[in-house]
Order: sequence, then C-alpha cells, then structure tokens
Amino acid sequence: MKRTALIMAGGRGERFWPKSRKALPKQFLSLTGDGKTMIQLTVERISPLVELEDIYIATNRDYKHLVLEQLPGIPEENILCEPVGRNTAPCIGLGAEHIARKYGDASMIVLPSDHLIQYTAIFTNTLKAALHVAEASDNLVTIGITPDMPETGYGYIKFNSDEMMGSAYAVERFVEKPNLETAKQYLESEQYLWNSGMFIWKVSTILKNMERHMPETYQGLNRIRDAIGTAEQESVLEREFTAFKSESVDYGIMEKAENIWIVPGSFGWDDVGSWLAVERFNKANEFGNVISGDFVTIDTKNCILQGKDKLIATVGIRDLIVVDAGDALLICQKDNAGSIKKVLEILNRSNRQEYV
Amino acid sequence: MKRTALIMAGGRGERFWPKSRKALPKQFLSLTGDGKTMIQLTVERISPLVELEDIYIATNRDYKHLVLEQLPGIPEENILCEPVGRNTAPCIGLGAEHIARKYGDASMIVLPSDHLIQYTAIFTNTLKAALHVAEASDNLVTIGITPDMPETGYGYIKFNSDEMMGSAYAVERFVEKPNLETAKQYLESEQYLWNSGMFIWKVSTILKNMERHMPETYQGLNRIRDAIGTAEQESVLEREFTAFKSESVDYGIMEKAENIWIVPGSFGWDDVGSWLAVERFNKANEFGNVISGDFVTIDTKNCILQGKDKLIATVGIRDLIVVDAGDALLICQKDNAGSIKKVLEILNRSNRQEYV
Repeated sequence: MKRTALIMAGGRGERFWPKSRKALPKQFLSLTGDGKTMIQLTVERISPLVELEDIYIATNRDYKHLVLEQLPGIPEENILCEPVGRNTAPCIGLGAEHIARKYGDASMIVLPSDHLIQYTAIFTNTLKAALHVAEASDNLVTIGITPDMPETGYGYIKFNSDEMMGSAYAVERFVEKPNLETAKQYLESEQYLWNSGMFIWKVSTILKNMERHMPETYQGLNRIRDAIGTAEQESVLEREFTAFKSESVDYGIMEKAENIWIVPGSFGWDDVGSWLAVERFNKANEFGNVISGDFVTIDTKNCILQGKDKLIATVGIRDLIVVDAGDALLICQKDNAGSIKKVLEILNRSNRQEYV
Repeated sequence: MKRTALIMAGGRGERFWPKSRKALPKQFLSLTGDGKTMIQLTVERISPLVELEDIYIATNRDYKHLVLEQLPGIPEENILCEPVGRNTAPCIGLGAEHIARKYGDASMIVLPSDHLIQYTAIFTNTLKAALHVAEASDNLVTIGITPDMPETGYGYIKFNSDEMMGSAYAVERFVEKPNLETAKQYLESEQYLWNSGMFIWKVSTILKNMERHMPETYQGLNRIRDAIGTAEQESVLEREFTAFKSESVDYGIMEKAENIWIVPGSFGWDDVGSWLAVERFNKANEFGNVISGDFVTIDTKNCILQGKDKLIATVGIRDLIVVDAGDALLICQKDNAGSIKKVLEILNRSNRQEYV
C-alpha cells in the first residue's frame, strides 16, 4: 500500500520568543545546533519510509514561503495552506482528502513538525510496526511515549496491556492533561502513555471516522475536495475551512472511535515545549551551561545562553535563559519560562507587532 | 587671589564596562540620566567659583579629543595631556606649574572628574570655606566626607576635632583603605572622615611641598615648565613625565606634610565606584528597578537595567545589572559587580581589544 505522510506545521508557538515570532514559528527554527530546522529534521526522519513526493505539509498560508525555502524537495502542490487555524481534525481531514484524491487509498502517517527524536532508527521501526497494524484493517494507530515523570503538560492514553496486535496495544481511552496527583497515579498504574500527537492510519479509515464522528466537517472537506483543480479551489477552501469548528483529532475522533491501537515508542522523544528543552538536547559544559554564540562567562552556572551578533558577558548568574534574537533579547529565570507569553501580551497590547 | 581649578581626568576605570572602554572611560560617560557626562557635571559644579578660562583639565592625550568635544568652553591650552599615567602627584604638579607660569601664584582647587555631588550649593560653600583656609597661609586643605558605613574601599583621614581654623579641622594622618574591623573602629571613634580626593591650596604651597617631599619630581616639573611655549615642549614633557615615579599626592605629600586641614563635606557625595551607584542617584520604580532604555519587565525586581537600541525583555529576574552598550552586553548579579574586571582580563588575554 502506498505510504504517505502529513506533517502539521501551522503552529504559532510563543514559547520560543524572541527567536520565534508570528512570522517565524518554532517549526521553522533551528534549535539543535546542527543548523537544521525542526521541520527539516521531521522530513529527514520520515524519508526512509515515505518518498518526498508523498510527503504533505499542512501549514498556514503565511508560512508557505518558509516551507518552500526550507523544504525545496517537497512538491509545491503538496503544501496545503490553511486559510485559518482550526486545530488538528480539519487539518488532517484536508490532508486525507488530498491524498485520497491522488491515490484513492493509502496509508498516512501524521506527524507534528516541531518535535525532536533522538534515535531515528528506532523511530523508523516503531512507525513500521504501526503501519502494519494500520494497514491490516480499519485501525487507528497512535504512538505513545513511555512517561519518565508525572508531566502535567501532556495528554495521556490508557491502554490495555493484555490486548495486543503486533507491537500495538488496544487503547481504552484518551485523557486530557491531568493534575500532578492524577499524573502520579497514571505513572504508578503502568497503564498510561503520553500522547505524542503522531497517528498512523489508512486514508479511508480516517475519512470513514470523520464521516461518522464529525459529519459537518466531513461534508465541508468533500466540497473542498471537489473544488481541487478548479477555478474555485481557493474560494471554496477559504469558505469551507473558515466555517469548520476548531477541533482536535483527539477530541473529535480518537475519544469516540473504535479500533484504536497504540505502539509504545522509545526513541528519545522531546516535544521541545520551551527554552528549557535546549538543555535536554545540547550538551552542557562543566558549569552546566549550554552556550551558543559569543559569550564570556564568569562564575555562571546552569544557564542557557544563545547569542547572535554581539558579545555578551555574564557574571555571577545562575539558572537564567538568555536569548539574543538581534532586535530583541530575553533574560528569563528558568522557573519562569512559562511567563514568556506575558511579554508577548504586553507587546501586543502596546502595538509593537514588529517584535511579536 | 586668583582662583583656579585642576580637574583630573586621566583615569581608565574598568568598572563601568561595557559602557566604559579604554577609549571612553567613566568620566566621559553620562550615568545620571540627564545626558550630561561626569566631567561636564564636574565643570558645571565648579563654575560658580572659577572662570572657565581658569579651569585646567589633566588627562591622557588619548582623551584630548573627548575633552575638546565635551567641554568646548575650556581653552585648548588648558587641556594638559599626560603622555602616561603617573598617579595624582605628577598630575597635580603639572597643573600647578602651568598655573604658576600664567599667574605667578593663585589658589587651586583639585577635583576628580568622575564623582557625583547632589547638593551643589553646599558643595560650593564647602569649597569657599576650604579656600579661605588655603589662602590664609601655607595650608594644604582637603575635603573629607562623613562616613555613613564602614566602607573598606576608601582611604580615611584622621582629624583633631579640638583644633579648628575656620570650618577646617587639623589633620593628624592619612590612612590607607582599612579592613572591615578597622573601618568599624574608625566610624565609632568619630575621628575619621573619608578621603574624597579633593584638595585646595595655593599653587606656591603645593609646589613648595613638592620641592621638599618629592624633589626629583619637582626638578622634572621645572624642566617641563621651562620648555612650555618652546619647540621642545612636547619632547621634554614626554621624557620628564615618563621618568616620574608613579605616586599619589596622598602618599607622596599629604602623609608627610604639615599644616594639613580638612573641611567636612555634607553635600551628597558619591564616588560612582561601580554600576551599583546607578541605584543611588536614579529613582527606582515601585519594583525597585532603575530602568533606562527599551525594556519589558515581567516579575522583575531590584534590577539596574540600561538598554540601548534593542528591546530587552526580563522575566522573573532579581538583583541583576543589565547593560547594553551596542556591541557588547553585560548581565551581572549585583553581588558580583566587582568581578566585571575579570571579563576584561579574559577579553585582553584573547586579544579582543575592540571590546576592552
């Protein structure tokens, strides 16, 4: 069966300000020190399984030029531009319709564009295992990450360890981000995995489920599909997509569907949720500092330091994140990384769009 | 009696890096938020007592262009350029010879160029009182600051509270920077004032004392004086001044001379010894931050923030000094302000002269 992939790259994350901006979200940034952007790494990672011409990128139309620039090997017609963000369900539906139109049926790997994975061979093999389950029947397959801490920032998936198909376990339910107490119970129970946001299914399977669980969206997607290649393609997409209810595929489909399976992944996954992630995938020096750029450090410990074109000297500081983006610079205590969005609120309120 | 002033402006302070550089020392910086540089404020402060044409500036020749730029009212021939720094005694001797050559005798106020004074009227009156004592006889007069803490960074002057002349007390001795225990004893004794580095005397008096206590320097100064206005002026200055022993006027003369008097000054004196001084003479906002430049602050307290041309956002930080100088930026914990010189050591060692 033809194997395709849909990479979701419409996000406008604020947590990597000042490097990320509305005009340059996280997936288009290089954060790993190898010069490759998150979306380039995502394509590179999937390319042993899927031909470049079968990789689709769903993004906001504001970012089409970034995709073209960063991924010159992807055919332009595979860049699916959402007129507005409507969460993952409409995005996946749009991708599925495009693939169905080209191939009839095919298997489809859905991936976020802004995660990092350390062990790519294990990742590839995990996806292969998931594909086998997805292609065997009308199964919806997801990749679950084995938790190593009671993280409250992720959704969890409960599985049944007694019911297996290949390497996959039967999914009992999807649950929202828990509080700390609940997250601890999940870990102890050994019955929950983190929801990685990666899905594997046949195009026919996801569309059948969309027809059943999100019928209005499904009708709109069909109208979009019928207009592809016609003069009305853009106007129909604009009208129908804008009218979609904003819905995640987790809530809109996975929490309601049957035949859901999960393959546990152990490939060093990181959702790169904030600047703190930089410490996890870059080696710190003997003082606990992760440094890129032109820094002179005196008595400086456990800091994340990202410079640009100016010399930055640090003296006597601890546990700070310093990021120079050229026109703007951030100095943030690590414990307060979550408050970076407040900077953006202030910049928005004071109409300083050039910095947002 | 003609009243003149010598402003000593040869210092190369490192403690205001990255704003201060070898090519732009502290006395040529504006640190008070009113746009005026330290040396401009010094001249402004002395001008009720001394005509502009009788104010002399002693500086390193590297800084002559800065003096000309910042003090256009001072005659160019009053800018006395030291070929090298030889501490305060040769500097003051050079000034005294120039004044003596022009006026025969005159009273002479010697002032550092990089201190701040809050109450200028009290300052003026204090100097007037000192001038009366200096002009009355062959007295060497200094201004002492009443200590408000056991500071270990200043020299102290012991005075005799029973022996007065006008507003001045007889000086018993000059002492070097004490340790904390000794400094506490000084405060308790009520017999010590801080050495402010400001002196008032007649030109004839200081030259007589120089002849007696620093005879070699005095001979060299006479040779420099004889060459003024001749074709050899520069070469003689270069040769003689370079040969001088580096000596402070405190050690070379004041610790040995007689007839020393001290006038206590209570005019809000600050030697502006480090970035921490910025807090003392600029009003902090409700969060204890002293801010100049383009900052967005979230949960930021008790910081000194000096921006330049880029937006700087601070999140969750405490007790930091942040100074953007354009090509270089400093982030320093307040307690570690003394370690800024280590940054300069590293820059020097790595031959990055453009930043020093």
